[in-house]
Amino acid sequence: MSVLRPQKKKPERSRRKFLAVAAVAGGSVALTSCGNTDDTPVPTGANMRPYGERAPQEKIRRTIRELTASPGTGSSRTPLQDLYGIITPSALHYERHHAGVPAIDPATHTLLIHGLVDKPLVFTLDDIRRFPATSRITFLECGGNSVGEQGGKFPETVQGSHGLLSGAQWTGVPLATVLREVGLKPEAKWMLAEGADACRMARSIPIEKALDPEVLLAYGQNGEALRPENGYPLRLIIPGWEGNTNVKWLRRLHLTDQPAMSSKETGYYTELRPDGKAEMFTFVMEARSVITRPSGGQKLTSHGFHEIVGLAWTGRGKIRQVEVSVDNGKTWAEAELQEPVLPKALTAFRFPWRWNGEETVIQCRCTDETGYLQPTREELIAVRGLYSGYHYNGLRPWRIHATGEVQSA
Amino acid sequence: MSVLRPQKKKPERSRRKFLAVAAVAGGSVALTSCGNTDDTPVPTGANMRPYGERAPQEKIRRTIRELTASPGTGSSRTPLQDLYGIITPSALHYERHHAGVPAIDPATHTLLIHGLVDKPLVFTLDDIRRFPATSRITFLECGGNSVGEQGGKFPETVQGSHGLLSGAQWTGVPLATVLREVGLKPEAKWMLAEGADACRMARSIPIEKALDPEVLLAYGQNGEALRPENGYPLRLIIPGWEGNTNVKWLRRLHLTDQPAMSSKETGYYTELRPDGKAEMFTFVMEARSVITRPSGGQKLTSHGFHEIVGLAWTGRGKIRQVEVSVDNGKTWAEAELQEPVLPKALTAFRFPWRWNGEETVIQCRCTDETGYLQPTREELIAVRGLYSGYHYNGLRPWRIHATGEVQSA
Repeated sequence: MSVLRPQKKKPERSRRKFLAVAAVAGGSVALTSCGNTDDTPVPTGANMRPYGERAPQEKIRRTIRELTASPGTGSSRTPLQDLYGIITPSALHYERHHAGVPAIDPATHTLLIHGLVDKPLVFTLDDIRRFPATSRITFLECGGNSVGEQGGKFPETVQGSHGLLSGAQWTGVPLATVLREVGLKPEAKWMLAEGADACRMARSIPIEKALDPEVLLAYGQNGEALRPENGYPLRLIIPGWEGNTNVKWLRRLHLTDQPAMSSKETGYYTELRPDGKAEMFTFVMEARSVITRPSGGQKLTSHGFHEIVGLAWTGRGKIRQVEVSVDNGKTWAEAELQEPVLPKALTAFRFPWRWNGEETVIQCRCTDETGYLQPTREELIAVRGLYSGYHYNGLRPWRIHATGEVQSA
Repeated sequence: MSVLRPQKKKPERSRRKFLAVAAVAGGSVALTSCGNTDDTPVPTGANMRPYGERAPQEKIRRTIRELTASPGTGSSRTPLQDLYGIITPSALHYERHHAGVPAIDPATHTLLIHGLVDKPLVFTLDDIRRFPATSRITFLECGGNSVGEQGGKFPETVQGSHGLLSGAQWTGVPLATVLREVGLKPEAKWMLAEGADACRMARSIPIEKALDPEVLLAYGQNGEALRPENGYPLRLIIPGWEGNTNVKWLRRLHLTDQPAMSSKETGYYTELRPDGKAEMFTFVMEARSVITRPSGGQKLTSHGFHEIVGLAWTGRGKIRQVEVSVDNGKTWAEAELQEPVLPKALTAFRFPWRWNGEETVIQCRCTDETGYLQPTREELIAVRGLYSGYHYNGLRPWRIHATGEVQSA
């Protein structure tokens, strides 16, 4: 910032005067004219648009990782280091697809509910929109977010390490309302939710969860229709559960007496325990937090004040506390939580920090309303071993070098 | 919705069987195949994208109204009847411009703060981003929203009548923090905020408000940078005050001992009283609510259950209560407020209703936490006369015809 030399006249009265600008630490500003209005004519601006776009200078983007030769099979990650607040712009919400993004015509798309029900039914989107709806701000995190960290692979940026995480306002009909319409038979204990993507991605949901009033048949995301890559025109939203259970492009709900043992709940999204067995149906995302600024790949360009900001979230309810350490874990101090603090939603936090220019390590940890404290990587490995992979929620320290460069620590 | 005929075999075991579908009231569905997986190969879907777009079938849009021959001078309105929840997608946030949307390079854009200050300063965007920031979900409403209703002009749709209203999550630095940096002289009583649009749109803000910690120098909207039509790269956000004071493309703050009497606070955005004088600096948007579905231009296609939904908001804090009448104002019943109910933010409400097919009038009214009750149009006119224009917040009834058509009432 630059200090202006004190002026003798009030600026309103000096329209035709030029203000000299003194250079101060950090650069100088050539200010050719100022006053109540200035004299340089400015061309009139652009016209209004029916549907806006971001400014051309804005370049932040999801990073795409293809996992197979089949197009659209892989993931794209949210640029957490560049975002603000608890709602991820829909254009930047993370993606994880198992057979690409299907092109679905909402006019003909239907949801079939069958199996152990009194009255199998097929619903159009218009049918579903007739039910009472609700909106809810929640986080969504892929069960495989940070899948490599347990084994010692640390991506360079927070987008790489935590980018399979986003926040949104979802709108839809409580699934329980629609299940009442079909009538569940007493033997119905599980519900297979199946998507309309090419691989018919499907997950089994225990019936108690399917009847939880939080669970939505969602058609709205951040105020408008779901985006294609987020399940357009209909997806299951299960707040706090791993992303994969929030089945996109939802086409079928099959009520059964046992889980379907689909490939995505047997071959994937299971956790190898130290005893060699794999844990299945580990649905809930436990409490987790991460510093998003400053974070890996960024650089502090000056000593002195820096605000440390980040996100915390838990599938168990609300975040109760976030603590930050700026001295390699020796001491911890409480961060300020940004209102609103909503259950099963991203919670933003901030922490004022004065950097003295010395190398250090910064990190955060959170506690949720159940009292659960986010573990260190070492604590997590002691319990789960090195190979459980999914649901990794260890701390993520960042090393600040004396040069200001920030790196995975 | 269509009832499926009960099946003899479990669907998992009948992959190659066809299910017959019985037609019920409302249409029939031809279901050619179903089961745990189906047999028709589905092509793999589209690839991931760095920055997503809405589905091509989605067509909802702002409606544009040009007010002069100069491009971009006018307004565009948010399609409230088509949206969900309390956050308006940035692409559909309302616009009101007085000289179009300027193209600003954020790398060179600066904010000058001068006048009755100890240390006049010029801030770059990087300077501003170094201060501690906060995010806040608020509504923004043009002071001229529904400007014609008082005089008896009732647009056909809620987009036409109330569409200069949107909700967003704004992120930025409390203005008070930055004003502390320049140091206010005791004589500083007003602050002129000036935009970088061609007309240098400017408003005078009383110093008490400028120092309110709620007031932000905002650079973020719904998680990413401000959109060009919402002030990119910097705008003033004054929660609860008329949109026009939330100066876009902010380039200058001038501290003075009296208001600047800019054209937009003398010739516009003032309210003609019945005694012939005009009221100036009527900043706060009072409590208001509207039913967005069903609303003008829509049509109920069946008798029976319909959910009435809408929005309420107040510049005085939180909405305490919304009431709905479905019998032309004879009786009122309380609507359910959608959580979260945030101060100075849009609050969504809903009300279950069974339409018997007879003509009726539906409407809503709200009370805010100060106890203020939204007035009827007649009550408002009794106090303000017919010509005050701005800050109209009367009730908005909708007539449901026996045909199901909904019209301004």
